[in-house]
Amino acid sequence: MHEHWTKRSVEFSDTDLGGLIHFSRYLIYMETAEHEFRNAAGLSVSALVEGEHLSWPRLSAGCEFLRPVGFEDELDIRVFVLRKGGKSLTFGCEFFFNGTLVARGEMSSACCILRPDEPLQSVEIPPILAAHIDQVSEEERKAWQPPIRPL
Amino acid sequence: MHEHWTKRSVEFSDTDLGGLIHFSRYLIYMETAEHEFRNAAGLSVSALVEGEHLSWPRLSAGCEFLRPVGFEDELDIRVFVLRKGGKSLTFGCEFFFNGTLVARGEMSSACCILRPDEPLQSVEIPPILAAHIDQVSEEERKAWQPPIRPL
Amino acid sequence: MHEHWTKRSVEFSDTDLGGLIHFSRYLIYMETAEHEFRNAAGLSVSALVEGEHLSWPRLSAGCEFLRPVGFEDELDIRVFVLRKGGKSLTFGCEFFFNGTLVARGEMSSACCILRPDEPLQSVEIPPILAAHIDQVSEEERKAWQPPIRPL
Amino acid sequence: MHEHWTKRSVEFSDTDLGGLIHFSRYLIYMETAEHEFRNAAGLSVSALVEGEHLSWPRLSAGCEFLRPVGFEDELDIRVFVLRKGGKSLTFGCEFFFNGTLVARGEMSSACCILRPDEPLQSVEIPPILAAHIDQVSEEERKAWQPPIRPL
Repeated sequence: MHEHWTKRSVEFSDTDLGGLIHFSRYLIYMETAEHEFRNAAGLSVSALVEGEHLSWPRLSAGCEFLRPVGFEDELDIRVFVLRKGGKSLTFGCEFFFNGTLVARGEMSSACCILRPDEPLQSVEIPPILAAHIDQVSEEERKAWQPPIRPL
Repeated sequence: MHEHWTKRSVEFSDTDLGGLIHFSRYLIYMETAEHEFRNAAGLSVSALVEGEHLSWPRLSAGCEFLRPVGFEDELDIRVFVLRKGGKSLTFGCEFFFNGTLVARGEMSSACCILRPDEPLQSVEIPPILAAHIDQVSEEERKAWQPPIRPL
Repeated sequence: MHEHWTKRSVEFSDTDLGGLIHFSRYLIYMETAEHEFRNAAGLSVSALVEGEHLSWPRLSAGCEFLRPVGFEDELDIRVFVLRKGGKSLTFGCEFFFNGTLVARGEMSSACCILRPDEPLQSVEIPPILAAHIDQVSEEERKAWQPPIRPL
Repeated sequence: MHEHWTKRSVEFSDTDLGGLIHFSRYLIYMETAEHEFRNAAGLSVSALVEGEHLSWPRLSAGCEFLRPVGFEDELDIRVFVLRKGGKSLTFGCEFFFNGTLVARGEMSSACCILRPDEPLQSVEIPPILAAHIDQVSEEERKAWQPPIRPL
């Protein structure tokens, strides 16, 4: 599995006095879409693996905003695996409104083990999880532009 | 003026069940730091310029998370002008906890005129505003790494 | 029409370091449920009525929290009209998890006309809107306890 | 100690498309003011007491909105102990803008012990904490109106 589609409408509390969606909300939409992907792939973000609690702290996240999006606009959201690393995952996310790409983002997380009273420890993604995840095609990956580009 | 420093403590509602600050909150901290910069420079984001309402829609925003940050940690935040374009501004942001860089971000906005019942129209930054803003040094700008880098 | 049912799962960003949903999020769930009710009743919160923009500023809102609710718990939400006043509406809201009532809230809004460069002006709910809204039964209304009670 | 004063300006992300502060944000302002009160009284919400972690789940919270409040309005916030019960605390909160009361709220929390892998257990407020907290005067308590009143 390498992608998941979902839908979401912009809520009133997602807007700001500019009259449109607040830009920080895209990160929340991205995260929830990622969690839906994980659930669909059978690897809930809160799952135990071999008796260990995993945690996925964010390494980076960003988004590019292409078109204005307003209250109650229903977005089609595609979340997909841009890169399956040994110890990290990078998801891409595309937002469409009426078929037009309106925003695109990216977020990376490290795979860590969470034990009480110990600092998070970065580990290899357990094979039982990794087996359910595929990257997008090499072609798509090469064509992908980061949402933030050098100055 | 090219930079502004501020302080901010992580609130309870900024955390998530992972026990640390939620990553989306950094964008809000960045935005509020930018608004403080603008106020300090005399160009409030909601100011009228020559009788026109300006609006600054976001073009992109992102952040890299370097160290865990938790509830009631007090952050020192530096916001600065990475790039003063003709019609846009790019701000950088660095977050420090006890003197250590814990996160760094970047966000760009377009300068637009907001008129009732018209779509936003991108314009040159009015000289009266531009005169109050300087870029960071060429040296710092060249050394800056985007918070999201190519795969 | 006097009630509307909807479903919603608790998102990661809705939780706090206590491991459960943050209490402020219930107000947002209540508001979005109210907007769904309004849309279902054909009176979108952003509708024009006789050429006027209406606005519904909140008069009060509150919630009582009866059971812990956590990440990805799917809530069944019932929103209903507790009181249809001449110039205001009071909605009640009940949250269920697996059939058990876990929270209950209430919020009131005034019906106002929004004109550019004028202060909001409280008005009678236009008959075309009021015609689509019924109160809950007198019996239910009398049995309702406010979510915040006198000390 | 029975009250604490703090200041806070409305951030851009606290507003909604109505152009004013979103009503749910008052609960967050209230909570952070309560935490400042607790810190000032020497009983941080995350403190260990006799080797136990305490937790203070919310029982109820609500707010009444008296005047419109907008972006960058600086609020003076008074938080105070309305009721010190055996196993719970009720805080009141008043929001002032330029000396005028613009909103008033109330929130109650239960004192609980948090042990790994056990459900929260309600307990008496430890005397070492209770000793630092006083109720407002009987007079003020009697004059207080709940922010949500019976229909």
